[in-house]
Amino acid sequence: MKVFQAERKFQTAGGLHVTDITDEVAEIVRESGVSDGICCVYSPHTTCCVRVNEYEHGMLEDFSALLRRLVPHAHETYYAHDDWDRRTENLCEEDKEQANGHAHCMSMILGSAGESIPVGEGELCLGTYQRVLFIELDRSRPRRWLCKVVGS
Amino acid sequence: MKVFQAERKFQTAGGLHVTDITDEVAEIVRESGVSDGICCVYSPHTTCCVRVNEYEHGMLEDFSALLRRLVPHAHETYYAHDDWDRRTENLCEEDKEQANGHAHCMSMILGSAGESIPVGEGELCLGTYQRVLFIELDRSRPRRWLCKVVGS
Amino acid sequence: MKVFQAERKFQTAGGLHVTDITDEVAEIVRESGVSDGICCVYSPHTTCCVRVNEYEHGMLEDFSALLRRLVPHAHETYYAHDDWDRRTENLCEEDKEQANGHAHCMSMILGSAGESIPVGEGELCLGTYQRVLFIELDRSRPRRWLCKVVGS
Repeated sequence: MKVFQAERKFQTAGGLHVTDITDEVAEIVRESGVSDGICCVYSPHTTCCVRVNEYEHGMLEDFSALLRRLVPHAHETYYAHDDWDRRTENLCEEDKEQANGHAHCMSMILGSAGESIPVGEGELCLGTYQRVLFIELDRSRPRRWLCKVVGS
Repeated sequence: MKVFQAERKFQTAGGLHVTDITDEVAEIVRESGVSDGICCVYSPHTTCCVRVNEYEHGMLEDFSALLRRLVPHAHETYYAHDDWDRRTENLCEEDKEQANGHAHCMSMILGSAGESIPVGEGELCLGTYQRVLFIELDRSRPRRWLCKVVGS
Repeated sequence: MKVFQAERKFQTAGGLHVTDITDEVAEIVRESGVSDGICCVYSPHTTCCVRVNEYEHGMLEDFSALLRRLVPHAHETYYAHDDWDRRTENLCEEDKEQANGHAHCMSMILGSAGESIPVGEGELCLGTYQRVLFIELDRSRPRRWLCKVVGS
């Protein structure tokens, strides 16, 4: 049995920016030596997530518009998370300047923090148009993602 | 290779109540003896789910308001699931008294039933503000969650 | 340690059709010989996903109505993904005839491409009403899903 972990760091562009990390994940799977198993790609942030979908700029624009319509930005509506007269937990100076209540709500709606992708014959079992996407829901920030590969 | 499973039971408060189960999950990971692997935290219920996000009361209030806006309560709108003149499948006496069509829709929108979290150096690889949350979408009920840890 | 993979192919009915694949997944788990581990059920398509929830026709009707309300069909609203005057990436002749921008947005909102379900005593640890659902968000198409079982 093999278990392998890698981490990558980068600066996101902010504002629902999506980064295609497929090639890096595929490289980590090859490096892991796992030919048959599961690859878990994980965002350790509360206002980002990892999703698998197509990377096509029109689609990303549609998705961004939909998400902004369903979950208005903190500049447009009230979020208790950004109400510094009430907030007493997890006080973060940086958040005070740039409200991000919407980004937390977006990440809850988008689902799990990561994706688990089958690995077969040493490669990610992605479909033709599937790409691994790192989605920034908050402002431009230094971010990281983890990749854990388990198998034989 | 190690595979370890644990189950926890409790009574939820109902009404979009969120329970922070991080400490219990971390304890199970330590008990598993797995130092490098994947931890799968899973809700075996159709009107609950496990998500990873911040546990901050303002944020939970925002999330609850958003979810109720997107998916109105069964008292406010029609759900075929709660139409006992039509329903023929999975008849559950308790549901008859307390409609929960909205809770099923909410759990579908929220995504997968569980979360897979990488384990490294014997600990959950959670980010600074990440917590493991058990989300009750229905009324107060006896619930349970499973934790499966696989690795070396 | 055992790692087992199986694939199933079928033609979906299209139009938010949901197929209950629980029995087939359970059969694959038994075939895998894994008694304790994780089962990852995965859709390799960008306009489908695998979710765990109840399979009750009223609930599926409610869910379908909700999803169509939140994410209007490509015939009802503009999607850049379907704007062939602008589109330059991933050109697919079939998509030209039948716009599917909404199906991509729906799959993003629904979350991860697959579900990871604990396996215990050789069986899926599903709750009483939980079923494994394959959800077609696009038109009727030939589709497949993967099942990877890892454990001891």
